Amino acid sequence: MLFSALFVPDAVADAVGERAWVAAMLEVEAALAHAQADAGLLDEAAAMRIASMCSPDRFGVEEIVRHARTVGNPAEPLVRRLRALVGDDDAPLVHRGATSQDVVDTAAMLVAVRALDAIVADRQGAADAAAGLAERHRDDPMVARTLLQHAVPTTFGLRVAGWLDALTRARAAHDRLRAGDVLAVQFGGAAGTLAGLDGRGTEIVDALAARLGLAAPRQPWHTERSRIVELAAALALDDAAVATIAADVALLAMSDVGEVAEGDAGGSSTMVHKCNPTGAVLAAACAQRGKAHAAALVAAPAHELERAVGAWHAEWDALAELLACTGGALAHARHVLERLVVDTGRMRANLEAAVLSTPADDVGAAGALVDRALEAHRA
Amino acid sequence: MLFSALFVPDAVADAVGERAWVAAMLEVEAALAHAQADAGLLDEAAAMRIASMCSPDRFGVEEIVRHARTVGNPAEPLVRRLRALVGDDDAPLVHRGATSQDVVDTAAMLVAVRALDAIVADRQGAADAAAGLAERHRDDPMVARTLLQHAVPTTFGLRVAGWLDALTRARAAHDRLRAGDVLAVQFGGAAGTLAGLDGRGTEIVDALAARLGLAAPRQPWHTERSRIVELAAALALDDAAVATIAADVALLAMSDVGEVAEGDAGGSSTMVHKCNPTGAVLAAACAQRGKAHAAALVAAPAHELERAVGAWHAEWDALAELLACTGGALAHARHVLERLVVDTGRMRANLEAAVLSTPADDVGAAGALVDRALEAHRA
Amino acid sequence: MLFSALFVPDAVADAVGERAWVAAMLEVEAALAHAQADAGLLDEAAAMRIASMCSPDRFGVEEIVRHARTVGNPAEPLVRRLRALVGDDDAPLVHRGATSQDVVDTAAMLVAVRALDAIVADRQGAADAAAGLAERHRDDPMVARTLLQHAVPTTFGLRVAGWLDALTRARAAHDRLRAGDVLAVQFGGAAGTLAGLDGRGTEIVDALAARLGLAAPRQPWHTERSRIVELAAALALDDAAVATIAADVALLAMSDVGEVAEGDAGGSSTMVHKCNPTGAVLAAACAQRGKAHAAALVAAPAHELERAVGAWHAEWDALAELLACTGGALAHARHVLERLVVDTGRMRANLEAAVLSTPADDVGAAGALVDRALEAHRA
Amino acid sequence: MLFSALFVPDAVADAVGERAWVAAMLEVEAALAHAQADAGLLDEAAAMRIASMCSPDRFGVEEIVRHARTVGNPAEPLVRRLRALVGDDDAPLVHRGATSQDVVDTAAMLVAVRALDAIVADRQGAADAAAGLAERHRDDPMVARTLLQHAVPTTFGLRVAGWLDALTRARAAHDRLRAGDVLAVQFGGAAGTLAGLDGRGTEIVDALAARLGLAAPRQPWHTERSRIVELAAALALDDAAVATIAADVALLAMSDVGEVAEGDAGGSSTMVHKCNPTGAVLAAACAQRGKAHAAALVAAPAHELERAVGAWHAEWDALAELLACTGGALAHARHVLERLVVDTGRMRANLEAAVLSTPADDVGAAGALVDRALEAHRA
Repeated sequence: MLFSALFVPDAVADAVGERAWVAAMLEVEAALAHAQADAGLLDEAAAMRIASMCSPDRFGVEEIVRHARTVGNPAEPLVRRLRALVGDDDAPLVHRGATSQDVVDTAAMLVAVRALDAIVADRQGAADAAAGLAERHRDDPMVARTLLQHAVPTTFGLRVAGWLDALTRARAAHDRLRAGDVLAVQFGGAAGTLAGLDGRGTEIVDALAARLGLAAPRQPWHTERSRIVELAAALALDDAAVATIAADVALLAMSDVGEVAEGDAGGSSTMVHKCNPTGAVLAAACAQRGKAHAAALVAAPAHELERAVGAWHAEWDALAELLACTGGALAHARHVLERLVVDTGRMRANLEAAVLSTPADDVGAAGALVDRALEAHRA
Repeated sequence: MLFSALFVPDAVADAVGERAWVAAMLEVEAALAHAQADAGLLDEAAAMRIASMCSPDRFGVEEIVRHARTVGNPAEPLVRRLRALVGDDDAPLVHRGATSQDVVDTAAMLVAVRALDAIVADRQGAADAAAGLAERHRDDPMVARTLLQHAVPTTFGLRVAGWLDALTRARAAHDRLRAGDVLAVQFGGAAGTLAGLDGRGTEIVDALAARLGLAAPRQPWHTERSRIVELAAALALDDAAVATIAADVALLAMSDVGEVAEGDAGGSSTMVHKCNPTGAVLAAACAQRGKAHAAALVAAPAHELERAVGAWHAEWDALAELLACTGGALAHARHVLERLVVDTGRMRANLEAAVLSTPADDVGAAGALVDRALEAHRA
Repeated sequence: MLFSALFVPDAVADAVGERAWVAAMLEVEAALAHAQADAGLLDEAAAMRIASMCSPDRFGVEEIVRHARTVGNPAEPLVRRLRALVGDDDAPLVHRGATSQDVVDTAAMLVAVRALDAIVADRQGAADAAAGLAERHRDDPMVARTLLQHAVPTTFGLRVAGWLDALTRARAAHDRLRAGDVLAVQFGGAAGTLAGLDGRGTEIVDALAARLGLAAPRQPWHTERSRIVELAAALALDDAAVATIAADVALLAMSDVGEVAEGDAGGSSTMVHKCNPTGAVLAAACAQRGKAHAAALVAAPAHELERAVGAWHAEWDALAELLACTGGALAHARHVLERLVVDTGRMRANLEAAVLSTPADDVGAAGALVDRALEAHRA
Repeated sequence: MLFSALFVPDAVADAVGERAWVAAMLEVEAALAHAQADAGLLDEAAAMRIASMCSPDRFGVEEIVRHARTVGNPAEPLVRRLRALVGDDDAPLVHRGATSQDVVDTAAMLVAVRALDAIVADRQGAADAAAGLAERHRDDPMVARTLLQHAVPTTFGLRVAGWLDALTRARAAHDRLRAGDVLAVQFGGAAGTLAGLDGRGTEIVDALAARLGLAAPRQPWHTERSRIVELAAALALDDAAVATIAADVALLAMSDVGEVAEGDAGGSSTMVHKCNPTGAVLAAACAQRGKAHAAALVAAPAHELERAVGAWHAEWDALAELLACTGGALAHARHVLERLVVDTGRMRANLEAAVLSTPADDVGAAGALVDRALEAHRA
């Protein structure tokens, strides 16, 4: 992402960068050698020799990518270099039975897992901060705004409970993702038949999955990309949650409303008196870009026959950027929520000034609804 | 959808049309009256009187929509008409504690449920047909094409198993959807506080959900639209599955390939000799539109505060069209798969003519992988 | 569009509906017969006989669409029916040298032209209303809000000048579209070679274009879809203009801001005291859907070789809906602008209450910039 | 873009990278000082002193971006650093009357201009190569494939003429863009009023535009983003042109078709015999990503009031990536077209083997249509 340091936490940016992808590809090659040793296709010593060469430091990332241009993917030059490193005897044992897509897809899943790991703390932090706000302001009344018009009374606790619930639902979606087989290894060889493996193909898939901490898929998924859509959808839930938090904070922080403010809000280059909702702005921008990348993956053209002409290659960047933007979105949302200054006096004043058709103290079951959101968060 | 009768099965088109929406809104009003009677907020006779008026025949659908223009949503004129129908005494009991969005959102979920019901048979039919093909051609060899180049041997069974697996994953996503709380009622009143209901709000939510066969949500979700994204994502899996089936069928049906043909393929207005893959074409078009609608929902702007300015209204059409297109996609895919003519002789001839680096009979574990796909389908 | 009567003016909805498409296809067949008579390929009397049958009343629209299912497009059954109507002698003269896509694409362009005609008055009306507001409030001060924070002084005239300028730019884009060859006939036969026309192909293209009031393209554009992208982009400018108007009106109409209000603002089903910005809401929703359709066309998969598998069919609905939504967006924007109530007193009060770092009367060259926008509008 | 060196030419990647943006922002600050000197707002010597500090080498790009986090945009820390560099006396003269968005937007346009300059050669090269192919194969017959079925005869020249025409239309769109005021400076100060400039605002806009080689806009366009949509649409035409070229080449290069091949086609990591259409694959992937970014800009949320909350920040990356992807798409398309191996014998053989309803030598006006495309290309 352009101006990545402005938008994306370093840990997430590093997790999805080119070096991380190349490192993950090497992990795959190393794990594949071991998995084939597990299955008796090569001896353990050879696997150790191969794995020992699978260090990114031995591979110039930039050079690998540049050499990829001739063949169209980074796995091929990486395998070529790895074969050169292990020497002629072991070379045929490297990448055995695999195709480039096996390596890149599995690496993509490793990259996703690490990025999701880097993201999870910010989602949790944002949710914890929201929970704190919801609890603290459980019964603080404010005016609800429907279509931006003063409508009826509500509580700030309930507003925040809505934010919290969105984060809780996103978390649940990611939990389902982790529990299922979305984050799976890819291994099948050129046609996905597991040919050339002495009939030990599915065994190797299982061993590879176990070694890499990924799921073992029922089938190779070279052109069956449900997993990518499912992953995109889960991340889109994060982005949607953040987008609403950011929009609401920016609106409630309006000078004309003044009910919240960002604790360490940024200034303006021309207007020192302003208290810009900078965190909300950055969160909104990341969420918008994240949604766009998720939408691009959802709407991507079909992958045809046994390897797609372009649709596969177009996924890499979209997936990496989706992870980066979502990481940025959650980090900014957390930052905003952890420092949010809430002006309950102004809320009350705005409520009292509002022309409402219902009594200002009728907030229905708002408190109980907040409690439910807190309970779900803590579950 | 323009030329709906060309693309979308009547049952699906009917399930998502304006009349279906208005009918569903009336179901919601009727169920709400009953649910409030359950909670003791009105007496059963009044609920019966209200419910008895909730027939779409008493409401000119076109007129309701036209009157909606002044207020911006169809629930308001519908409620006004319903109040007029029940008379002055019962009028205050209609729509009590509800806001327009409660009615429209709950109706949207009812519409979705009925459309999903209409779709499920075609997904199942497509999957069954794919399973039949995969079983029948489990071991029929063909050449795998990666980047559209002859690569290595595979089987037609394994190609179809990939299609089947995509449908199975889509089915699983819908099963999770149904089992969870995505398809939920909406009820909260203007601010989502459940005010004006004598403290019986959550009880009414539960009763309403039970009566309508929908889930009871933890919170009102007026501006927490995760459910819409989750629903869109599940439907996008259907569309992605169909898109790949359509692309593959069209490619394998190419005159230059000739390995499959649609059983009752359409002719051409100028070229009587052609055997157009019409079903694949229509399936592809529906899937493309479906994905676009799903992407629009995934990338939709945030819903702000207690009711969104436009983002909510923009959902209705996107959701209805997504359901329609996905229904069309699955229906055409089923049609194609149920009638697919497979030329195993041509497959074998193409395979033998291909210049391959591996023996033409080495299809690895293709058969076992087919069996797995069949097993998952039958589970 | 679902709830079309709520969102889309009848004139636009009619212009893009199925009946309009079928009528346009018949116009194309009639014009084609005449154009071929012009070129001496058939005698004028035969052209007259064919054209006399090209009345939509002789063609059941629903039946045509339903029969399209077998062959995958509505031109084929329409041609079949037309041939039956003209009788055996004239039948071979119908649709001569044409392919289905010639008829549907040319009809699509006719539909677009009529819809654009129906839209232009609302764009002009919106711009005129904006111009009136800009002129009237040229020097009325208000506070500028950057990132929704009070920033520095500006004028309401300048705010409106921004809206006006967006509409003026959209108009200019449409003027360029009309002046160029975007809205062109399609005619080329199955492969776009103009075969089977005794060498009079390009002559017929020109005559067809002249008769239908469309441009004559340099080439058949069966799979060269730049025109669709260019048309989508021009409409997207309308939608973007409206989206900003709607967002700004809704924000300035906030109860907390109170600087504008919609003149006949809709009420709420639960809150009679509210003055909802209904027009802005509907405008925003239409613009959002319009943008989504435009984006779908911009991001559509490639059309391959001589006729696309699905990508062509997926265009029809997207184009029709894009036109409908944009028509709706402009109509609602016009409605809002023509009735906008501006509270200059409240603007002044908000400005005076704002904590600013610059004097409240320093609005720089705002007046001159308003004049420029007015000048461009009137040009 | 992830794996940028694989997809994007270095010249384009450099033109849109962070360093290029920061350098462009500094150019803007320098030009602004000079423009204000032109208008007599500061003396020429001061402008020279300021400009002399505007070298990217004096600004750590990474540091600037990192410091941007607090305030939400990179212009603020850049201005702060520039003020420190010029010393206390000149500091107030730096960035006078400007807001951060003025600097970033104008820099974005400079970045776009340079990227477009870097792209134009590849568009021209691709078009020249296509023209060469069209001319060389003007009359070489092949079978047209509609819906991937053999249809009627055409020529390879006409197929290529379609590709060429798409590139010619894209070029024309860019020419219009350059001739118009899309690539314009942004200058207006916080509210776009040109306040604080002693009434010389519009004069400074003109001088700034002249110095930077950009257009002078009628109005500040802080939240009137038509230009971004127009730029995105022009680039989308490039991407659409490339997408079709890539799809067609990949299809015609299919082992089963064999009518074209990439001259230095990449191999496969597992299948040495394959002649992968690597260039087409990379072109297709770039075009797909490019379209997705263009669509994201077309569908972007409204920019509200005087500075958008997030929608503005979300543009930067989308625009940079759109330029990069489109540059990559055109470079790969050029590479493919310049090296395309055409097997006219195979074309003829496939044509003769096809079951057609028209004579194999009836290619209508194909030759004349090719000539038209060549003529338009040369105009």
